[in-house]
Amino acid sequence: MKVSIVGITGYSGLELVKLLNNHKNVTIASIHATKEIGRRLSELYPYLVGVCDLVIEAFNAQEIMEKSDLVFFATPSGVASQLAQPFVETDFPVIDLSGDHRLPADSYEKWYKKTPASDDVLNKFTYALAEFTDVQGKKFISNPGCYATATELALIPLLKAGVAEEDSIIVDAKSGLTGAGKALSESSHFVNVHDNYVTYKLNRHQHIPEIVQELQLFSKKLHHIQFSTSLLPVNRGIMATSYVKLKKPLSEAELYAIYKDAYKDKPFVRIQDDLPELHNVIGSNFTDIGFVYNDVTNVLTVVSVIDNLIKGAAGQAVQNLNLMNGWNETEGLLISPNYL
Amino acid sequence: MKVSIVGITGYSGLELVKLLNNHKNVTIASIHATKEIGRRLSELYPYLVGVCDLVIEAFNAQEIMEKSDLVFFATPSGVASQLAQPFVETDFPVIDLSGDHRLPADSYEKWYKKTPASDDVLNKFTYALAEFTDVQGKKFISNPGCYATATELALIPLLKAGVAEEDSIIVDAKSGLTGAGKALSESSHFVNVHDNYVTYKLNRHQHIPEIVQELQLFSKKLHHIQFSTSLLPVNRGIMATSYVKLKKPLSEAELYAIYKDAYKDKPFVRIQDDLPELHNVIGSNFTDIGFVYNDVTNVLTVVSVIDNLIKGAAGQAVQNLNLMNGWNETEGLLISPNYL
Amino acid sequence: MKVSIVGITGYSGLELVKLLNNHKNVTIASIHATKEIGRRLSELYPYLVGVCDLVIEAFNAQEIMEKSDLVFFATPSGVASQLAQPFVETDFPVIDLSGDHRLPADSYEKWYKKTPASDDVLNKFTYALAEFTDVQGKKFISNPGCYATATELALIPLLKAGVAEEDSIIVDAKSGLTGAGKALSESSHFVNVHDNYVTYKLNRHQHIPEIVQELQLFSKKLHHIQFSTSLLPVNRGIMATSYVKLKKPLSEAELYAIYKDAYKDKPFVRIQDDLPELHNVIGSNFTDIGFVYNDVTNVLTVVSVIDNLIKGAAGQAVQNLNLMNGWNETEGLLISPNYL
Amino acid sequence: MKVSIVGITGYSGLELVKLLNNHKNVTIASIHATKEIGRRLSELYPYLVGVCDLVIEAFNAQEIMEKSDLVFFATPSGVASQLAQPFVETDFPVIDLSGDHRLPADSYEKWYKKTPASDDVLNKFTYALAEFTDVQGKKFISNPGCYATATELALIPLLKAGVAEEDSIIVDAKSGLTGAGKALSESSHFVNVHDNYVTYKLNRHQHIPEIVQELQLFSKKLHHIQFSTSLLPVNRGIMATSYVKLKKPLSEAELYAIYKDAYKDKPFVRIQDDLPELHNVIGSNFTDIGFVYNDVTNVLTVVSVIDNLIKGAAGQAVQNLNLMNGWNETEGLLISPNYL
Repeated sequence: MKVSIVGITGYSGLELVKLLNNHKNVTIASIHATKEIGRRLSELYPYLVGVCDLVIEAFNAQEIMEKSDLVFFATPSGVASQLAQPFVETDFPVIDLSGDHRLPADSYEKWYKKTPASDDVLNKFTYALAEFTDVQGKKFISNPGCYATATELALIPLLKAGVAEEDSIIVDAKSGLTGAGKALSESSHFVNVHDNYVTYKLNRHQHIPEIVQELQLFSKKLHHIQFSTSLLPVNRGIMATSYVKLKKPLSEAELYAIYKDAYKDKPFVRIQDDLPELHNVIGSNFTDIGFVYNDVTNVLTVVSVIDNLIKGAAGQAVQNLNLMNGWNETEGLLISPNYL
Repeated sequence: MKVSIVGITGYSGLELVKLLNNHKNVTIASIHATKEIGRRLSELYPYLVGVCDLVIEAFNAQEIMEKSDLVFFATPSGVASQLAQPFVETDFPVIDLSGDHRLPADSYEKWYKKTPASDDVLNKFTYALAEFTDVQGKKFISNPGCYATATELALIPLLKAGVAEEDSIIVDAKSGLTGAGKALSESSHFVNVHDNYVTYKLNRHQHIPEIVQELQLFSKKLHHIQFSTSLLPVNRGIMATSYVKLKKPLSEAELYAIYKDAYKDKPFVRIQDDLPELHNVIGSNFTDIGFVYNDVTNVLTVVSVIDNLIKGAAGQAVQNLNLMNGWNETEGLLISPNYL
Repeated sequence: MKVSIVGITGYSGLELVKLLNNHKNVTIASIHATKEIGRRLSELYPYLVGVCDLVIEAFNAQEIMEKSDLVFFATPSGVASQLAQPFVETDFPVIDLSGDHRLPADSYEKWYKKTPASDDVLNKFTYALAEFTDVQGKKFISNPGCYATATELALIPLLKAGVAEEDSIIVDAKSGLTGAGKALSESSHFVNVHDNYVTYKLNRHQHIPEIVQELQLFSKKLHHIQFSTSLLPVNRGIMATSYVKLKKPLSEAELYAIYKDAYKDKPFVRIQDDLPELHNVIGSNFTDIGFVYNDVTNVLTVVSVIDNLIKGAAGQAVQNLNLMNGWNETEGLLISPNYL
Repeated sequence: MKVSIVGITGYSGLELVKLLNNHKNVTIASIHATKEIGRRLSELYPYLVGVCDLVIEAFNAQEIMEKSDLVFFATPSGVASQLAQPFVETDFPVIDLSGDHRLPADSYEKWYKKTPASDDVLNKFTYALAEFTDVQGKKFISNPGCYATATELALIPLLKAGVAEEDSIIVDAKSGLTGAGKALSESSHFVNVHDNYVTYKLNRHQHIPEIVQELQLFSKKLHHIQFSTSLLPVNRGIMATSYVKLKKPLSEAELYAIYKDAYKDKPFVRIQDDLPELHNVIGSNFTDIGFVYNDVTNVLTVVSVIDNLIKGAAGQAVQNLNLMNGWNETEGLLISPNYL
């Protein structure tokens, strides 16, 4: 299969290159950006010399459809909603890594402050949390957000099992800087991040409605979550710490069974005996989950960790690609975490 | 006033040296450790050449009482409980930075797994959160823990004002590595901390009973808190993120008034307009507090930050020293945060 | 004495505020910037609430001369050369922390690619490496560059003693990110600095001519140095590693004597027994120097470390202020390194 | 081919697991350590759950020879010299990643302060810098050191071309902490590494004789090098900055030709147009090399970067494995650098 990537110079685009390079069934047919047209990608990013020496092209939907079989959008929010329509109209497969096709139009407008895609287009997209969505044969995939992935995978098993007090949920999530993208700003200047820890967009993060919407598929009684986001002084990785009141006390074994059952055939979710650390998963497509119940406060603490650029973006996109096509779910993704 | 420091080679001991060096009313008469007796401190720590060239002495209570007017214990837990007794019996002033005189004997034994001090000694100590405890004229001060300081200062105003649902409180606290002390272990090896984020001692941290005990002074209805502790890949700093359900919605102005009122004459607590960041306070004795209320979930998020070695240890000890003696509370402590 | 600071929002300006705040003989009369006029400095930088709440003013030479006794320029290169002239003409004291008055006009133009100050003005300025320049009574001080300070202090003793092969010198210097200033660029984005190490401006750094010019005061036989500059993934600190062929082998004792002699009355230069580490000096005005001679290669390796914002900028400026006025050299500067 | 790994819990052993896991021609038959015998590797290192769940075995040469076709030693120095002999005597293939078979016995004893292997054994080993050593058909491979690899690959082209003043060479090399191994020590405690930069083992690093020995294969006129080693506050990566006087000035094109020619069929050495940065190569088996000539000082600065655990250890070991067996040199090693 031949694929094109739109938004090649963003972090998710670059990560797609790495992953697809090792994918047996896929060739990258073209890469697209709005800047640096005509230059080799490896000229801009010398780490890619000999790895990917493709030339950056301007975006042209027609040309992409001619030379490829599927297009990835790894663009900032507000771009895919403008560019994806011709593909959808032609029934040409799209995987959108951005937030543009995750929410209903009104909610998108409220949380992203941008013009939404049309309802027609939105209705054709499937929000695909790879472990819980059946995407085989689907053509238009909206890939989940990074915070959303880590949070949803931690909470869905509890909601499915009906053991959580739905509206008690509080999530304290932390991300490395690649989660904030490449834009230059005071808040991404090295000196302001290093040796610091900053909470941002409190109660205003655009992944909140996405998480609530997905969790409601598993429990109608959930109305909202309290969700906070902070920046860790690291490049990669998300830890979502979820605090959940239980309807009644559960033993560790019961909780373990709930999680093991939820992910029994899922190669990329690992239920760990101890609370997972960021470096368990960085560099890989794994989600690691661990938990501790406090019988004094009746609060279950669930810790989930992912690599925000892999399971939280490019990796899950490839996982969805595999599932769409009925390929082995792990093709191109069996990479060990870096650990060191 | 002449003072002695027991436990000079720990992080808190070293920090005391820096602060007392700039204190007009204090001279360091002697420094004590169990190792490296007879060597200059600056030989072991070349950064101190010309700053503190005192020679390390073995501990001897009698000699300390002869040459000093007050002794600081900056020792690991389990030491001050063994060594402080002769001072207490002689009515010789003690400021203990360790956890040894903060809890009743049974609670200490349960959480610290060490032999407690005698009840006689424990009863003479005052747990002194500097902003809320009257220590003038007191002789035996138990200095609060670092996590405890950050958490208590964030929560007491809400409890005093009676606006919090007491048993809803969840605190997600994070600390730099100096909070874990100098001991060599896998968990303090650079490679395991850098680019990582690790949650530890969940529901088992020894500051939990200390926090509950102090908060109960302000509300009898509080029975417990849910408290988690994690390690940030930085040297210094604590952020405590507290999630509190309110009894009824409050406006930002009402909340601001509650905090401003609680700290109106307190030079080291700053109520900030925006959520505080770690680097606001590192290097200083300040506690910065900010908050955001979410009217969808009815959760107030309070963020408090301190330098764990200053306000969380040596700085608050000096602040308590000042208050005990009726000196200016800020003497020796008016240091700007590093920021950069 | 009242002073004004021009360029208050740069890193050096902010560091001056911290230092002058603790200086017995100095009051900050006004602070100036080109942006954010009329706002309190502590509004922009909340870490300064209660530390410095002065309001930022527009630059006006006349007003500064009326309300102050001396002006600091902590501006980017190319600014002080434009603004300092009226002060010089009025014989009003100036300490310029920027590079604008360090080099002859032609050299400045070549290395800085900016319009130089007039020769008249340049001739009035004294380049003041505090340990080697007599500035008492001087009115116009050009404060050395950060790399230049670390390098010159390491090499001058060898040149004075006549033991170095002058043109053999190779310096491999490394700096934290604050040395590169606040400007937003790809090269200061957190993700590009963290876990990275980047050599930049090789053979083109503007401190090269400044170093050569100063070293030539101590040896006419020195014609050039090989000088490289790299960015360490830390906020603060410079280490200059100098490699020097010796004219003849020297014992450690002889070398030690050369350095001790050169700095015998200099409170801010410490000759250390072991090679100094960055954290020996961060947060302080110290320069630490250590060395090891290799009798196989006949190369002496000299390691010098400074805090680039203190000894490499604001601290040395205050030291020069003290010396200009005949005050105690250490006034306001006896701060312990942070170490932790 | 079946292989065994001795020293599985060290950083190089763990890295071998990652690489061999993706190698088409290799299966890991057994893993060995001195501790934790009988436990699954993934129990100790949860990041490996589902990646490598092999059980750790005690070392037994006979058993290894029965179940495997080749053994890797990824042990600390002083171990392989004791354990490798039975394999050598049986003509069973060995790749030793440690320093135990790199130097003649007397030199090993001097620099490593350990008992060397016997001359018989040492004579059978080939020191294999993969780009310059013909190992096809060889059975006993001594894999180069990390600093040595980065330095030798930077300097050999100049020596081969005869353009360097041989005894002018000064190398300022820097490494991340994984280069120092897993041992717990003050110098590997997070607090002492973070925000610090430390030069260690100056003129005493055990890679010095290894480098000189290898460089002398390309120029008899080289007698020594000046070599310094420092610790960067990062986990991975080495940059070797080499300063070389040229016999006569060379143009950039001439220098580029020298390097391009030296590595023309070498897939893992990339001659870059700009000076390479650490993050160009981290996570990969690449060596990136760049240079700048200074016609004022006649010094050529060559910058080479590698991932110390991959090209500097496990990656080069796999590359040697490929070459020994006449397989494709890049098998299992075509991994993109992490970059982010």
